[in-house]
Amino acid sequence: MATTLATARLVLLVALVAGSTSCGGAWELSGLRMPTAARAVQAAAERFVEEEVAAPVIHALRPLVGSAGDLGWRGGVPCDSWRLAVETNNKRDWRTVPARCERYVGNYMLGGHYRRDSRVVIDEAVAYAEGLQLAGNGKEVWVFDIDETALSNLPYYASNGFGTKPYDATSFNAYVFAGSAPVLPETQRLYNKLISLGITPVFLTGRRENQRAITVANLRREGYSGWMKLLLKPVGYNGTAIGFKSDERRKLQDAGYVIVGNIGDQWSDILGAPEGARTFKLPDPLYYIG
Amino acid sequence: MATTLATARLVLLVALVAGSTSCGGAWELSGLRMPTAARAVQAAAERFVEEEVAAPVIHALRPLVGSAGDLGWRGGVPCDSWRLAVETNNKRDWRTVPARCERYVGNYMLGGHYRRDSRVVIDEAVAYAEGLQLAGNGKEVWVFDIDETALSNLPYYASNGFGTKPYDATSFNAYVFAGSAPVLPETQRLYNKLISLGITPVFLTGRRENQRAITVANLRREGYSGWMKLLLKPVGYNGTAIGFKSDERRKLQDAGYVIVGNIGDQWSDILGAPEGARTFKLPDPLYYIG
Repeated sequence: MATTLATARLVLLVALVAGSTSCGGAWELSGLRMPTAARAVQAAAERFVEEEVAAPVIHALRPLVGSAGDLGWRGGVPCDSWRLAVETNNKRDWRTVPARCERYVGNYMLGGHYRRDSRVVIDEAVAYAEGLQLAGNGKEVWVFDIDETALSNLPYYASNGFGTKPYDATSFNAYVFAGSAPVLPETQRLYNKLISLGITPVFLTGRRENQRAITVANLRREGYSGWMKLLLKPVGYNGTAIGFKSDERRKLQDAGYVIVGNIGDQWSDILGAPEGARTFKLPDPLYYIG
Repeated sequence: MATTLATARLVLLVALVAGSTSCGGAWELSGLRMPTAARAVQAAAERFVEEEVAAPVIHALRPLVGSAGDLGWRGGVPCDSWRLAVETNNKRDWRTVPARCERYVGNYMLGGHYRRDSRVVIDEAVAYAEGLQLAGNGKEVWVFDIDETALSNLPYYASNGFGTKPYDATSFNAYVFAGSAPVLPETQRLYNKLISLGITPVFLTGRRENQRAITVANLRREGYSGWMKLLLKPVGYNGTAIGFKSDERRKLQDAGYVIVGNIGDQWSDILGAPEGARTFKLPDPLYYIG
């Protein structure tokens, strides 16, 4: 029943949004179309609306949700304060998005807010990269996480409660093995800029070695090329994400590479020495990896 | 002229807000009264308003501001995305709040949003502290920053453009030497909880030694007591905040203390080994200290 509703919602979403986004620059997510560039929606956002450009769409689709989509004022932590606590690493080791925040997170992710927040992070990263004094010896690398950094799993989360349901390895891995995760266009803008500057991308991901082939195919399909390494977790690895990623960055350094930058959506992507000369945290209110 | 307007605004603000907050729990700021507990305002916030509970007050006071208070959609980075980039340490080394964000930051600080965001951080800190296995040997300490952590300089910033003007040492120091900075009540809730748990507070601040007496007086006046040390910068110190604070935490450790927690509003309060066993970042969109 829940799945049926979710599917119906997505179909409706596509239908509704498709009608309002005919101009270029829309953010396509394999079936989901992000209306960030839709002029009519943008005009609405300019009317001093802090909430999302696509919010009216989701609201219209979910008339039965009742009070679940407010800021959570009555039911506990307000959802916007919860999100800030997550993004600042004050809130840790959480397992699911609070149920009352499903609509809030949905609005955030599908509307313009997530994209806007991502854009500002990437603008900072690009400005930082452009300001570097580079040796240009091919040893300068930038570490990219994959999920919610290079590629987006939003199509999965949009039909699975926007993080409000416990992690389900079976369905999530099925999504990964479909190889259809869309690009995060802001990250790709940074990626391409770095290559043009002579900084070499390295992917470092919590995905496992048995997902290498599909991950390469997915990255290529979404327009990524020219990376030096794709570092995945061994299938049997059971340490922490922060431990795995720190160790891999250490190996890069020991091999003579200089990590000039490091970007991810989780704090476990960017904490733990050696972090890289500078780190960037992309937004992700969908899940936590410690 | 600008000062006159700012003063007039504050007077009006006090007048307007005072009329709407007669119930207990309002957050008083030496003349500024925070309407976070005002029922009428809270009811408005519950109507799915992401923006601030006091926003209508400020809007009414600033009819001549024109477009300066929107999300900055037209003029550059949207102010909410700018704030998130600041809070996540993606945006660094900034000198002033973007001019177009003055009203946005004012709304954030004076309305309920800042208080709500702070409350969530403190809730996490209290839960963490309550979950600690403590030795109870008097050696377990918690490091507190002062400005925008233990005490608030919002009265100063509210009459000086909410961070949009370059730092002015003369007027800011005059404010500090007045010794009237109000308590940040959420922080004080943590402070008192820690004492009840047997964890000893230590203040570590960028304020200078020549401000020790007034700082002690201000802290006591606002209800703080029972700290073990108040560590201030030597008057002639010209290193970085992160260097000074890391060194002082190292000295604490070398003296046998265990830093079980560390809280501040700046990333320079909580980065740099030894950070403390766990760190907490309070919101501060007013200024940056590197």
